[in-house]
Amino acid sequence: MPTLLILSSNADEYKQLIKLAQLPGLEFTTEPENCDIVLGEPKLIRDTLPRLPNLKWVQAIYAGTEGLMDPVLRRDYTLTNARGVFGELMSEYVFGYLLFHEKKIFERQSAQQLRQWDRAESGVLRGKTIGLLGVGSIGSYLAGTAKHFGMSVHGFTRESESCKDVDVYFHNPDILKFGEGLDYLVSVLPRTKDTNKIVNASLFDVLPSHAVFINVGRGNAVDEFALVTALNEGKIAAAVLDVTEKEPLPDDHPFWATPNLLLSFHTSAISYPENITKLFVENYFLYIEGKLLKYRVGFEKGY
Amino acid sequence: MPTLLILSSNADEYKQLIKLAQLPGLEFTTEPENCDIVLGEPKLIRDTLPRLPNLKWVQAIYAGTEGLMDPVLRRDYTLTNARGVFGELMSEYVFGYLLFHEKKIFERQSAQQLRQWDRAESGVLRGKTIGLLGVGSIGSYLAGTAKHFGMSVHGFTRESESCKDVDVYFHNPDILKFGEGLDYLVSVLPRTKDTNKIVNASLFDVLPSHAVFINVGRGNAVDEFALVTALNEGKIAAAVLDVTEKEPLPDDHPFWATPNLLLSFHTSAISYPENITKLFVENYFLYIEGKLLKYRVGFEKGY
Repeated sequence: MPTLLILSSNADEYKQLIKLAQLPGLEFTTEPENCDIVLGEPKLIRDTLPRLPNLKWVQAIYAGTEGLMDPVLRRDYTLTNARGVFGELMSEYVFGYLLFHEKKIFERQSAQQLRQWDRAESGVLRGKTIGLLGVGSIGSYLAGTAKHFGMSVHGFTRESESCKDVDVYFHNPDILKFGEGLDYLVSVLPRTKDTNKIVNASLFDVLPSHAVFINVGRGNAVDEFALVTALNEGKIAAAVLDVTEKEPLPDDHPFWATPNLLLSFHTSAISYPENITKLFVENYFLYIEGKLLKYRVGFEKGY
Repeated sequence: MPTLLILSSNADEYKQLIKLAQLPGLEFTTEPENCDIVLGEPKLIRDTLPRLPNLKWVQAIYAGTEGLMDPVLRRDYTLTNARGVFGELMSEYVFGYLLFHEKKIFERQSAQQLRQWDRAESGVLRGKTIGLLGVGSIGSYLAGTAKHFGMSVHGFTRESESCKDVDVYFHNPDILKFGEGLDYLVSVLPRTKDTNKIVNASLFDVLPSHAVFINVGRGNAVDEFALVTALNEGKIAAAVLDVTEKEPLPDDHPFWATPNLLLSFHTSAISYPENITKLFVENYFLYIEGKLLKYRVGFEKGY
């Protein structure tokens, strides 16, 4: 019988939701030794990997699975991640911050405190160009929202060019060509060996000084020192970081007090058990039929 | 020959743009006595109305034309307003403030100042219900953006039910039924005799305490005293006002310092001459062919 181990701080909620789905033949266990399926947080699964003799399939409840990518770890199972559920949340986050910036919401609030009728003109998204570093499931969703707001969309990918909402694609080695003329740069890159410090001083040098950078991917993509310098020197207008190299951010990290840098503490997209359960149920039926699972992560690619 | 008088603080820019369109037969004048067409700001036009013996058509550069609605003023001309150009801007504004609220951007910023890693859960638009007071050209655009973000859309109108993105329509006398269960209430109502204080204590009483109210229409739609009371008593969570009964807001008005009330000083949608000129050009061709103009304002309805 397919037997599921749940490794999550929300394990009870997941169990309830999965039970509601009445999946044929599925048993639950709390003993790693008994299970062939694990659903949970990559970090918890990582620690349990050596004690899973029958492991066939891991469904991660996050998009990022870097905790399971270390080459010293076993790779003799199918790893699937949470995909197609974060785009909507990321889109709310990214466009929330872009509009916050353009509509000068903070400045209006300051004016209000001073009882000043401040009619400084707001900026608009319409007609602007957004550059997406990474155009997978989340990036594609962001591209769709950008199109709704009448924007041009540039995409930087390894090779894929499959998103219809991207107007122009760029690939290595054209990262600086990609950066030129962007009004907004958004990284949704996963943590892989190829994404380290892809957002660095050279890229900040070619971005226009009014550009806003948002990172909703992983902190490793950013050269943090170069970002602090770029903001201090006014090379870009603002940065919004949902992710950083170290989380929580160390108390003495310069990001806390860098001008025009906003932190949001990895809150942009939460894994809602309802959403993840839907993915699990979808994949479970494929699993018991011996079919190829959806949302598979490639151990070599890292995403 | 059709002869145009431009009454706007941007008159030179309008003249340049209209000249670029090379409209057949159009002459420009600065003498009210000579013109049959006036393009401009309603308040400036109002003052000039008595000196326009040949007036046939007024193209207002704003959506709101209340300056020309006074029953003592002449109505022997066709009045058209700016329509279909503000929806995009209003949509950026309204969803910017809704996302600002849900993503707790202000609270995150305060946490950052205190160097606190604040992982309080953000709210989401998806699945929420927005109520639109008024579903004309602007309201319809807002409805479309709400649908993009996966929201339910309720609309309150006099009688029209023509917007496909509205899920449920309400009409008089069902304003309180409309208010029940809304997460967000947005007024895009024009200033007419029927819209005075339509947002009042009774409506605040039925809104949920987490509701956010946004006014991008006209200030007369709000009972301002009732709004201050509702916010002070926590009957609603927040209000965002782009418009107020008196503008600029008097120095001693309670709005300046009402908790959870944000002012934006009538900046949500600016008349861009490029956009207004397109409407004018479109209507000019209808005008010289003797056809019915588009974007006509009814003097009785007031919009």
